Amino acid sequence: MDQQVDLVCGAFSSDPEKARASGSDLFLPVARCYGSFEEMIRSEAALPADQRMDFISIVTPNHVHFPPAKMALEHGFHVLSDKPATFNLEEAKALQALVRKSGLLYGLTHNYTGYPLVKEARHLVASGKLGKIRKVVAEYPQGWLATRLEATGQKQAAWRTDPKRSGAAGCIGDIGTHAENLAEYITGLKIEELAADLTAFVKGRKLDDDGNILLRFKGGAKGVLHASQISVGEENNLNIRVYGELGGLEWHQKEPNTLLLKWPDQPMQVYRTANGYLSDAAKGAGRTPPSHPEGYLEAFANIYKNFANAIRARIEKRKLTKDDPALDYPKIDDGVRGMAFIEAVVMSSQKNAAWTKLDV
Amino acid sequence: MDQQVDLVCGAFSSDPEKARASGSDLFLPVARCYGSFEEMIRSEAALPADQRMDFISIVTPNHVHFPPAKMALEHGFHVLSDKPATFNLEEAKALQALVRKSGLLYGLTHNYTGYPLVKEARHLVASGKLGKIRKVVAEYPQGWLATRLEATGQKQAAWRTDPKRSGAAGCIGDIGTHAENLAEYITGLKIEELAADLTAFVKGRKLDDDGNILLRFKGGAKGVLHASQISVGEENNLNIRVYGELGGLEWHQKEPNTLLLKWPDQPMQVYRTANGYLSDAAKGAGRTPPSHPEGYLEAFANIYKNFANAIRARIEKRKLTKDDPALDYPKIDDGVRGMAFIEAVVMSSQKNAAWTKLDV
Amino acid sequence: MDQQVDLVCGAFSSDPEKARASGSDLFLPVARCYGSFEEMIRSEAALPADQRMDFISIVTPNHVHFPPAKMALEHGFHVLSDKPATFNLEEAKALQALVRKSGLLYGLTHNYTGYPLVKEARHLVASGKLGKIRKVVAEYPQGWLATRLEATGQKQAAWRTDPKRSGAAGCIGDIGTHAENLAEYITGLKIEELAADLTAFVKGRKLDDDGNILLRFKGGAKGVLHASQISVGEENNLNIRVYGELGGLEWHQKEPNTLLLKWPDQPMQVYRTANGYLSDAAKGAGRTPPSHPEGYLEAFANIYKNFANAIRARIEKRKLTKDDPALDYPKIDDGVRGMAFIEAVVMSSQKNAAWTKLDV
Amino acid sequence: MDQQVDLVCGAFSSDPEKARASGSDLFLPVARCYGSFEEMIRSEAALPADQRMDFISIVTPNHVHFPPAKMALEHGFHVLSDKPATFNLEEAKALQALVRKSGLLYGLTHNYTGYPLVKEARHLVASGKLGKIRKVVAEYPQGWLATRLEATGQKQAAWRTDPKRSGAAGCIGDIGTHAENLAEYITGLKIEELAADLTAFVKGRKLDDDGNILLRFKGGAKGVLHASQISVGEENNLNIRVYGELGGLEWHQKEPNTLLLKWPDQPMQVYRTANGYLSDAAKGAGRTPPSHPEGYLEAFANIYKNFANAIRARIEKRKLTKDDPALDYPKIDDGVRGMAFIEAVVMSSQKNAAWTKLDV
Repeated sequence: MDQQVDLVCGAFSSDPEKARASGSDLFLPVARCYGSFEEMIRSEAALPADQRMDFISIVTPNHVHFPPAKMALEHGFHVLSDKPATFNLEEAKALQALVRKSGLLYGLTHNYTGYPLVKEARHLVASGKLGKIRKVVAEYPQGWLATRLEATGQKQAAWRTDPKRSGAAGCIGDIGTHAENLAEYITGLKIEELAADLTAFVKGRKLDDDGNILLRFKGGAKGVLHASQISVGEENNLNIRVYGELGGLEWHQKEPNTLLLKWPDQPMQVYRTANGYLSDAAKGAGRTPPSHPEGYLEAFANIYKNFANAIRARIEKRKLTKDDPALDYPKIDDGVRGMAFIEAVVMSSQKNAAWTKLDV
Repeated sequence: MDQQVDLVCGAFSSDPEKARASGSDLFLPVARCYGSFEEMIRSEAALPADQRMDFISIVTPNHVHFPPAKMALEHGFHVLSDKPATFNLEEAKALQALVRKSGLLYGLTHNYTGYPLVKEARHLVASGKLGKIRKVVAEYPQGWLATRLEATGQKQAAWRTDPKRSGAAGCIGDIGTHAENLAEYITGLKIEELAADLTAFVKGRKLDDDGNILLRFKGGAKGVLHASQISVGEENNLNIRVYGELGGLEWHQKEPNTLLLKWPDQPMQVYRTANGYLSDAAKGAGRTPPSHPEGYLEAFANIYKNFANAIRARIEKRKLTKDDPALDYPKIDDGVRGMAFIEAVVMSSQKNAAWTKLDV
Repeated sequence: MDQQVDLVCGAFSSDPEKARASGSDLFLPVARCYGSFEEMIRSEAALPADQRMDFISIVTPNHVHFPPAKMALEHGFHVLSDKPATFNLEEAKALQALVRKSGLLYGLTHNYTGYPLVKEARHLVASGKLGKIRKVVAEYPQGWLATRLEATGQKQAAWRTDPKRSGAAGCIGDIGTHAENLAEYITGLKIEELAADLTAFVKGRKLDDDGNILLRFKGGAKGVLHASQISVGEENNLNIRVYGELGGLEWHQKEPNTLLLKWPDQPMQVYRTANGYLSDAAKGAGRTPPSHPEGYLEAFANIYKNFANAIRARIEKRKLTKDDPALDYPKIDDGVRGMAFIEAVVMSSQKNAAWTKLDV
Repeated sequence: MDQQVDLVCGAFSSDPEKARASGSDLFLPVARCYGSFEEMIRSEAALPADQRMDFISIVTPNHVHFPPAKMALEHGFHVLSDKPATFNLEEAKALQALVRKSGLLYGLTHNYTGYPLVKEARHLVASGKLGKIRKVVAEYPQGWLATRLEATGQKQAAWRTDPKRSGAAGCIGDIGTHAENLAEYITGLKIEELAADLTAFVKGRKLDDDGNILLRFKGGAKGVLHASQISVGEENNLNIRVYGELGGLEWHQKEPNTLLLKWPDQPMQVYRTANGYLSDAAKGAGRTPPSHPEGYLEAFANIYKNFANAIRARIEKRKLTKDDPALDYPKIDDGVRGMAFIEAVVMSSQKNAAWTKLDV
């Protein structure tokens, strides 16, 4: 989208013919349409340095996140991965160690943090405008799994409801982690402990399709997080509300270009993407004039853009300052927290919503 | 509002002069402006049957709900009371016994149930259109107690944050019960157990000003209820979402004339007050043409209207059928459930959010 | 609603029995349930001064506005009338002369001006916060006459589409005047000339059911006003937007407790009824706490309340200052402007949207 | 965005060094960063057929639309141009003749027609679901030119307010045409005549910054179109409402993924991008799952995607059927209508809003 990244190769299918067909639709040379990620990483690593790929994008089901990430890092490639980072917390910690050891870059597409007004929200909290944060309400209701869709052969439903491919959690792993990541990204606070009540409402489903969670943050803030895939009629209704001692904010993914700011005894303010009154972080994440709505792909692209700029700085041997926007993308530490969140939620729920710590 | 109830007397202040002045503003005869509820009930009871008041309205702080209700019932008057019904669960049960024994009518102004579209929501669930209910999200955030307003002498804040006048809970007793009542009214389900995390965020405050609660309903539905008086910038933002196996609904007190209906693979529908497609219950609760917004006072008046019609039936010795709209107002059993909810929430929170039953 | 006005008599039907039945539903004595307005005015005038009614409310079709108003004034009664004031401009001017001569009070229920935030809008313009006004967009789409409802015997439709009872205009007289009145009330500007294109879309209908109008205000502001009764699916969707050199505002009757304020290079502000930051005029027009929505009946009641207070001042021989809220209700001059608007619109449309002056 | 179009050359500036710098930011070879469109077209035409560009994109001010379009067509290149198509109607007709003669493809980026739900709206009208169309309200208020921004050296404001570069109209040419094009695209109706009142509110400005227009469509529908650049606080608030005999629709660019459908005596329906109940046209224009908002760039890209597919069909010598989505992009005929609209509006306004025909 920003003309900064070129797709140069891919492993689009385990069936070599399908892989080539998909690649060819994208105008890739046949030689770089690989039949597996292993083949891809090995072959690319064998190319001269100025011809090989710079990084890999992992967009596979959860159980195939760690293996390609690990192999790519071991062969000297940066990694940009779908969330959750890995299949379980153990793998996430191993990956964290690998990333640190390798010195390579690792990004995680918690794409909602790419929205300009999510960046504005984070900026407003960090600047102290809302005062000390007291309460957070994070929600991610969906309705697409209200029936047993996985039994119809629908692929997206099949792997997401399968413990062998999705991991210990269903709904909470798939979308609950987005709400968790968003809450921590915006507030800068860490969840300290939680009490979770997970349910599999659809008969025969092995993983949770709904979860309600009480949150306690380090420093005293409290919160509620609920996510659901059986909330009939909801699309991807990720929402967050944050209240501090001085002000509150509200953001909805459905209308991502609007951020509501709430004040005591003053009218609510409606912040909108791309206006001059926004912070540099928010303005830098926009591409169009005010009220030319930016969407999901632009937010996603912001993760890619920053990650690509961070790689470019490496290539050009530029040192980035701590505040450089290129460093504003989710990293392996976010991935580890996400996996810890999933494990804590599942453990808490198994113990009838007992308070459970996030120790990472 | 509906020309069905006349204010004929009152005890507007414990200061007799103030009481008379207030009454006179309302064009009441001096003789019926009493200095206390005791005086009022005794004096009115002494009047000839066709001249005395028919019922009393109790609009005092919580600790002065039970005494006038009890005395009125004992003197043969019907009672319409502010919620919560009493100061604690024990009183509520005593009142319940009294009401049953007296055969008199007792109404509770859970006024939000008076909105036409809340009645429509209840009707839609009862009719089975949403299928078996799985999930409920009920919220009541306010922001007016984000600072220690009670220390400034503000009367409304003073009694609501005072355990001697408000009861065991602050925020949860004041507004959490509205969310609880709304959830049970719309879904027809009973909360079976809950896990609550209450907080008093404002330094020096003795009662909770924020609460987050996990809910489990009889029959298997799950839910979240959160209420707050420190959610800066929120007005009286009572909201509810209910999801069944077949459909979902969403209602906001802020825009009470809109009810959202959500369906799988079909466009969301926007129900609006006063349209022909609504149920009789919802139509009967409206007074104006479509999109002439009805508000809080109309909803409140619907409680009064139904209660007055029930009294009139008594006076006229008409027997009401079970489905008569005149019977659609909150009663002492709702009051007992509300008090049980408050006690369960407080107890659960004291035990670090342990699951606690509602046994009434 | 404010316990300030008592209904003491009425002429509810030309059929004496029906009139008595209606009155009895409202607990009126039979003797004061009259069979015609003539009988009512004569009989009440014959009562002792302290027993007779203070003013009449006219809530009949348009062609029966002037006769009772005239007769009431001639018998010494104040008048509160539905809009439009009369059947045509000539009558309106005659009524204006009568009101002036009698020294009695005349109010017109342009009820939308009773909303608290409409008063705030007027205050904001008057205070100069928006700067010199440049542009006004006023709309009133409805859909209820999209088919020939009058042919089905529906009473409301029948008289509104009948030139003998409604007057020279249909949609424009019924609701276009509300938009006109609202625009002039909020901006304080007078429409100088207009160009109108009226249409009767429904076959066989004699009066316009849709109208689009270009506006030019004295002082240079421009505008658009459109009203419709064939805009299928619209309820009573009265809206207004006003833009000045420094700011803009937007208000929708559908959500009357929200007023949007727009600024260059600053976030939009959302004003809400009943908050402390509002003007005295807006605060004085509210009855409930913030976000306890106030609706159409409250707005209507505000007209009654102010009018009643103005009468009370007369009775008590108190002189009201120019800024007294009791004087804030539409008067005969607004009625004359409304009739002039209707005549100008009809004349312009007959001349193929030629510019036509409002000369009153 | 869809990996279907590669930027292969460009004339980014009349200053050759700047042109090269811009091109190099986009990773273009220096040799194909040209100093003028003339140089570009000549040089590319001189390359072997399989190496030269396929089409040009014109993204310059209005007075530089026709010259490169003309030259490109004359050298055998397809053209995708910003709107309005040309500087005046005469040029537009000349361009139309040229396009027809050349047999080449010409697209116009009326990008708002690229939104999935705009396509749905068009589909719904075409399918007859709304019945015969009666009324259209199209609006495009902006506020960015509420002050004399062009005097500050702001480039975008400078050329848009300059008759030599913008043409006969300011606001109407820049954004009024978008509203006109949207209205005709969705309804399939042609504006037959119009009455326009243009104003330049900002002192010293040579072109209109605000316009109010009455519309009459062929077949009897009526409408209002207003556009403004002095509506303070408005962003790019393009809106449209269309009412037929059977139903109505409403769409706002600000929330482009929502389309409101209105029915008599039925609840309003909320259509949302990417759902299964949409038409093929709307589904084909989406890229993400429901409620992952799509924005302005995606809509813009839809014009490019269809245009690119049409070119590819040419290259591959495939004949497209009349209904092929690749043919769904604005063409030279839309451009001619846009220019005729501008000329009619300006002429009508000069004659004090006299009715003026659109004869093309």
